[in-house]
Amino acid sequence: MKEKKLCHKFKIIEKGGVCAPLGYLASGISAGLKLSGKPDMSLLYSQKPACVTGAFTSSLFAAAPVILCREKIKKRAEAQAVIINSGNANACTGKKGRQNAYRMAALTADRLNLTSDKVLVASTGRIGVQLPMKMIEKGIEKAVSKLSIDGDADAARAIMTTDTKPKKIAVSLNIYGKSVKIGGMAKGAGMIAPQLKIPHATMLAFITTDVVINSNLLSECLAEGLEKSFNRITIDGDMSTNDTLLLFANGAAANKKINSSGTELEDFKKALFFVMEHLAKSMVLDGEGVTKFVTVKVLNAASKNAAEICAGAIANSLLCKTAWFGGDPNWGRILAAAGYSGAKFKPGKVSLYYDNTPVVQNGMDAGTSEKQLAKLVKLPQFTVTINLNAGKHSHEIWTNDISYEYVKINADYHT
Amino acid sequence: MKEKKLCHKFKIIEKGGVCAPLGYLASGISAGLKLSGKPDMSLLYSQKPACVTGAFTSSLFAAAPVILCREKIKKRAEAQAVIINSGNANACTGKKGRQNAYRMAALTADRLNLTSDKVLVASTGRIGVQLPMKMIEKGIEKAVSKLSIDGDADAARAIMTTDTKPKKIAVSLNIYGKSVKIGGMAKGAGMIAPQLKIPHATMLAFITTDVVINSNLLSECLAEGLEKSFNRITIDGDMSTNDTLLLFANGAAANKKINSSGTELEDFKKALFFVMEHLAKSMVLDGEGVTKFVTVKVLNAASKNAAEICAGAIANSLLCKTAWFGGDPNWGRILAAAGYSGAKFKPGKVSLYYDNTPVVQNGMDAGTSEKQLAKLVKLPQFTVTINLNAGKHSHEIWTNDISYEYVKINADYHT
Repeated sequence: MKEKKLCHKFKIIEKGGVCAPLGYLASGISAGLKLSGKPDMSLLYSQKPACVTGAFTSSLFAAAPVILCREKIKKRAEAQAVIINSGNANACTGKKGRQNAYRMAALTADRLNLTSDKVLVASTGRIGVQLPMKMIEKGIEKAVSKLSIDGDADAARAIMTTDTKPKKIAVSLNIYGKSVKIGGMAKGAGMIAPQLKIPHATMLAFITTDVVINSNLLSECLAEGLEKSFNRITIDGDMSTNDTLLLFANGAAANKKINSSGTELEDFKKALFFVMEHLAKSMVLDGEGVTKFVTVKVLNAASKNAAEICAGAIANSLLCKTAWFGGDPNWGRILAAAGYSGAKFKPGKVSLYYDNTPVVQNGMDAGTSEKQLAKLVKLPQFTVTINLNAGKHSHEIWTNDISYEYVKINADYHT
Repeated sequence: MKEKKLCHKFKIIEKGGVCAPLGYLASGISAGLKLSGKPDMSLLYSQKPACVTGAFTSSLFAAAPVILCREKIKKRAEAQAVIINSGNANACTGKKGRQNAYRMAALTADRLNLTSDKVLVASTGRIGVQLPMKMIEKGIEKAVSKLSIDGDADAARAIMTTDTKPKKIAVSLNIYGKSVKIGGMAKGAGMIAPQLKIPHATMLAFITTDVVINSNLLSECLAEGLEKSFNRITIDGDMSTNDTLLLFANGAAANKKINSSGTELEDFKKALFFVMEHLAKSMVLDGEGVTKFVTVKVLNAASKNAAEICAGAIANSLLCKTAWFGGDPNWGRILAAAGYSGAKFKPGKVSLYYDNTPVVQNGMDAGTSEKQLAKLVKLPQFTVTINLNAGKHSHEIWTNDISYEYVKINADYHT
């Protein structure tokens, strides 16, 4: 994916990740949870206590580690580590599942000489199976022993499930004359859909920063960034039981504390949102069997909700997604999706564009040749813009196509 | 699909279709609209004026023929013919498209010596392209010349698009000592989703009967039947611009008129609903690339809406559909879909069954072996029942899996 030209005050750190900010160590190891033997446990550790804020699945079947994170963060917005496993979601596992999640945290805390309230947990993988706690216990030992300032790549790899590659990034910027860094890692693939509220999309994402900021302001930044990043992505309309986004700020940069307004806050937010947008887009690009990245823009809807449901209907339409996969400029399917979305507008006033090329005007063929349109939708990235001419509200979603490969992966996926 | 044992007062007519009731002729011919040269125009004609009622897409982009049918039926619930084409949807075609639809009706009426208000129109196929009216005109001539009492099979074939086989049925029953018949034909495949309101699912369906009944009562019967048939099916969650269901009753059976209550009405409704259910299930079974027919039952939801959205979330979940294709008893995906559906319930009270075998109890694995569950979900037909234990409302949806073939068909489909 091409990044937009950066006219901001931050710069990207090559090879950076969650360990780029000061005071963070990470590791990723194989505990044996995945039959394939691939890495399946990650540990992220801050050398000093960090402010923490998070966003989680809104599923009624929230997994045990999600329940744990919610409970601990609600009690106190401070943490020092998160232990993560892939291969088993610890979801729909009842009371025993919750006990196991708390035990994961306690075992990790014990090894790190922390109180157990300082350790959070995240899991992803198969639903409905109890965690193999002996494996987990050994995995935790191993993960603690491997903690390193260079561990971000291993950590990003061990949280993967059907992802084809690790997703990570880091940036640096100046706040009150101090160098401040923000790093992140995420796993996505499959089951990604915006629920248009916090919490939102299926994923695990962990963001670290060494900035000095109070925890309320940190939460506000996260909420604002969510609307512009993870809440804009959709792969297949499903949402998981385990969605977790955690943001840590350990203050190791020792900058003058960021105020609740002013340039420093704006600079920090821009950098944070860039990291979040990058991770979100990486998930779409690495969605299962994805061959195309499609931006769906709805302009001039009658209400915010209308803009959102119209964009969602198009982005989640199987018929649109398969047409994109086929490189078929079948705009009828896009209008059809807008037509059943529930958004109110006058069909005769609608216009549609592929990138900047007119496709539909006044609800009818704009006259651009099929050949020209086909060229556009065969590109690996394009934007579908529908102007409803019904009001002043807009919304944007990032999505992808659906391929044979998607079906294959999801028909075959077990662990 | 196995039919339930018939303990009703009607019987199925072998080889029946829309021409089984007295006084109906039909034809299906090639007008050249499909590049493949396959049949693409059908005509259904009643020798005497018939009461008519219908249900149509709720898309804001309703196609020109849908607008025509709505306008004509609103003016007068009587008709004598419907001219149908496949290969071109005449949707998103503006004023010219509406003029063309009206011209199709006028040309047909002319050839049949009817006034043009007696002729309805339906179209299916590619969106956004104007009808080739010269071809249509010749096609109408040909369709009229081929009208026959044995034309139901040809007619059922010429309305197909990606369908693999024609869908038709007929039944007979006694009403006040007279033999009354009901016949139907439909096309489905792709783009089938229940919108849980009239109008409902993507499809063309035409039902004929020779019963004597007044048109208000006929409309009530159709509306009641819809909820038990076409509104229960979903293939890919999309809805088309052209959904059309028309029901004709020409009174040729000369029975004593059916009253608005009593045994005769009940008998007629049972037979009509059977025809509608058969056509609806046939569409699901003939959905694009379908290998499995899955009934999703939600029991004991807190509200009617909760039962519907929960069933819809499961039936439309790509992850559930691909798991079914793979014969994978991955019940976590079903619970996940229920969890994000928006229905309210307590996760710890939920139970789940594949056919009658317990899969989940109290929100957790019920202990049935994976092997035993795999056997069930490898069957070509099974029922997924989720008991939310949150109230008294239930809902049932018929759906199918998603295969490689589905993606292939929809990536390649052009006309």
